[in-house]
Amino acid sequence: MNLKKLIKRDKKSKIILFVLDGVGDLPVKDGRTPLELANTPNLDELAKASATGLHIPVDYGITPGSGPGHLGIFGYEPLKLEIGRGILEALGVGLEVKETDIAIRGNFATVKYENGKPIVIDRRAGRIPTEENRRLINYLSQNIKKIDEAEVILCSGKEHRFSLILRFPHKVSSLAEKINDTDPQGTGKEPYEPKGENEEAERVAEIARKFINQVAELLKNETKANYVLLRGFSVKPDIEPFPEKFGLKSACIAVYPMYKGLARLVGMDVITVEGEAIKDEIDTLKRYYENYDFFFIHIKKTDSFGEDGNYAGKVKVIEEFDSFLSEVLSLKPDVIAITGDHSTPCAMKSHSWHPVPVLIYSPYCLGGLSKRFTERECLKGELGIFPSHKLIQLLLAHSEKLTKFGA
Amino acid sequence: MNLKKLIKRDKKSKIILFVLDGVGDLPVKDGRTPLELANTPNLDELAKASATGLHIPVDYGITPGSGPGHLGIFGYEPLKLEIGRGILEALGVGLEVKETDIAIRGNFATVKYENGKPIVIDRRAGRIPTEENRRLINYLSQNIKKIDEAEVILCSGKEHRFSLILRFPHKVSSLAEKINDTDPQGTGKEPYEPKGENEEAERVAEIARKFINQVAELLKNETKANYVLLRGFSVKPDIEPFPEKFGLKSACIAVYPMYKGLARLVGMDVITVEGEAIKDEIDTLKRYYENYDFFFIHIKKTDSFGEDGNYAGKVKVIEEFDSFLSEVLSLKPDVIAITGDHSTPCAMKSHSWHPVPVLIYSPYCLGGLSKRFTERECLKGELGIFPSHKLIQLLLAHSEKLTKFGA
Repeated sequence: MNLKKLIKRDKKSKIILFVLDGVGDLPVKDGRTPLELANTPNLDELAKASATGLHIPVDYGITPGSGPGHLGIFGYEPLKLEIGRGILEALGVGLEVKETDIAIRGNFATVKYENGKPIVIDRRAGRIPTEENRRLINYLSQNIKKIDEAEVILCSGKEHRFSLILRFPHKVSSLAEKINDTDPQGTGKEPYEPKGENEEAERVAEIARKFINQVAELLKNETKANYVLLRGFSVKPDIEPFPEKFGLKSACIAVYPMYKGLARLVGMDVITVEGEAIKDEIDTLKRYYENYDFFFIHIKKTDSFGEDGNYAGKVKVIEEFDSFLSEVLSLKPDVIAITGDHSTPCAMKSHSWHPVPVLIYSPYCLGGLSKRFTERECLKGELGIFPSHKLIQLLLAHSEKLTKFGA
Repeated sequence: MNLKKLIKRDKKSKIILFVLDGVGDLPVKDGRTPLELANTPNLDELAKASATGLHIPVDYGITPGSGPGHLGIFGYEPLKLEIGRGILEALGVGLEVKETDIAIRGNFATVKYENGKPIVIDRRAGRIPTEENRRLINYLSQNIKKIDEAEVILCSGKEHRFSLILRFPHKVSSLAEKINDTDPQGTGKEPYEPKGENEEAERVAEIARKFINQVAELLKNETKANYVLLRGFSVKPDIEPFPEKFGLKSACIAVYPMYKGLARLVGMDVITVEGEAIKDEIDTLKRYYENYDFFFIHIKKTDSFGEDGNYAGKVKVIEEFDSFLSEVLSLKPDVIAITGDHSTPCAMKSHSWHPVPVLIYSPYCLGGLSKRFTERECLKGELGIFPSHKLIQLLLAHSEKLTKFGA
């Protein structure tokens, strides 16, 4: 089916999609999940009047990373559209990625030299503190600005991790990323040289080799971080922009770089939020409400507390979110959707495969099936269990943006 | 998605999968199904703490045979991986099938001769008793051991049915099975000659023609079974072994040849069970518990009673199975899964298309949704209704054998 043909482009609509990162969970106390423990009077009311269900981000039993989790929610099939590791790392540290770029994940490492050859003795340079990382990246950035025709862009990550972008004066093709990782995946080994599988990739690999050599020279007096390993060479994926694909002028309201990056990757406008609280995000929504058809609003802390195993914290974020619902309702959008990108059970302290509760509030719901917005109550809902990438179709339908299929 | 890339091969886990053959049913008494009628205190407790749902073996409304039913449960898409009829027949009678073999279903038939040509007058030789079949197969086996380069292996089935394997001294390709059935599908007709669609198949067909002629000569004085019809020429399918595909050292505990054969076909070790009772299978599980990561335990009688329309018998088998659950729990596996390969409603006395209840017990369940392990209670569960071949992904996830997809 060509969904684009069904979209009523002249129909104005407002859709607000809240993504409470990692909101789905498992029982944490008295057999209840954080959503069940939370006191959420507004969410409860909304759930009763909404279409509810659960969605599966990637596939049965498959735990998604943040990339696939969000791509699904944005209406792209995660199994058909993989984002390179280098790209995700760059987005995570807040770098913008262009069609002219190769993005690469970097690790600081410790090597010793035998007969002039580097031998890895620590693949993570003793997990140097992030502060130390910043000092080194700053130093390298000042000394390596360009290699041949490629601009060199560096950004610190956490501990030993950093992101590297090689920006060319021309568009690069998907062939350009066909370069091996240099990490030998063990100590006592010589790092691999990056080599390209084709002519275009080999040109990139050559610059990468020069980069590694220049870094080794610049860091030769460091005791720990005296070398770099490069992985996940990747180009910006060829994605049909979300606004075009779904006929929605779209904005992202998020605080963390990764999610702003993912939204930018699919062509949404990323609005700057002043502050980091949910309140600040809601204020931003109100301020820009007239300017867009679709708002993706990302709330990070549910996931962070899940990853920490802190269920009380997770409950609190859910309750905080609940307190802003009436403000959102007073905007009278056509559709409000609330969900997560995946589950992050406190008991697992990690993402998981469990289906994610979802609620769609619009005048065109059956409703009356779920008493609350929880994992178990949403199981009773009219949406059933469905693949994440179908969510956007449902949002379009509930906002009357789709015409019928066939006569 | 390449599932293999997500499997943590060094993560040790124990998964026990019970398949109660044909366990799903329809109301038989007071509007209740055999699972609902059965007194199953242990299963009830387990269901409350488990992830529950139902799975669809092949597709909506499609009734599976034993082959597709089990392939699905083993994680292979039944619609993408068909097993030839000859192979299934051979597995059913307990023959091992090799890569060098063509397996064929045979029927004894009655023919009369007109102008020296055989004309079928009974396609099933009056459904001769199985004992009679054994006598004939024994006689034929002694007199036809080899035809040209092919070893001839014969085994009786029930009534007029038998299994024939032509074993070559070399591997045969999938081309070799392209041979027509000889059964003219009606009386008063001459059986077809087996003919090959290609050179390799024609070599097999030639041997099959010689086999038919030798049989006709040997059985010419029989009044009923004086001829054979051959159908379903098939080679062993090219299946990626289950232990490799899913990273699980796997064992089959089953009593009936068909299920041992199917397990062997996907590369599981088949453990010999001393005895035929559920107790004997559980004893075998305990004896071999340390040796494997994954146990497929097949319980046949639920299906047999379903096929007989004997709901009381089916209830009793379910109750008997229930009585062994605490012994299984005391082994403390990571995951216990209980399901069937299809439904066999007593009212239909046959396999059916109805979704099959399934329960997954592990620390990573939401639970609290189904009060019992029944068709209706499992519909309330967190797994929803899903395709059978996804079950194995869920089992891997619940035993922490999968890493996440994408960053």
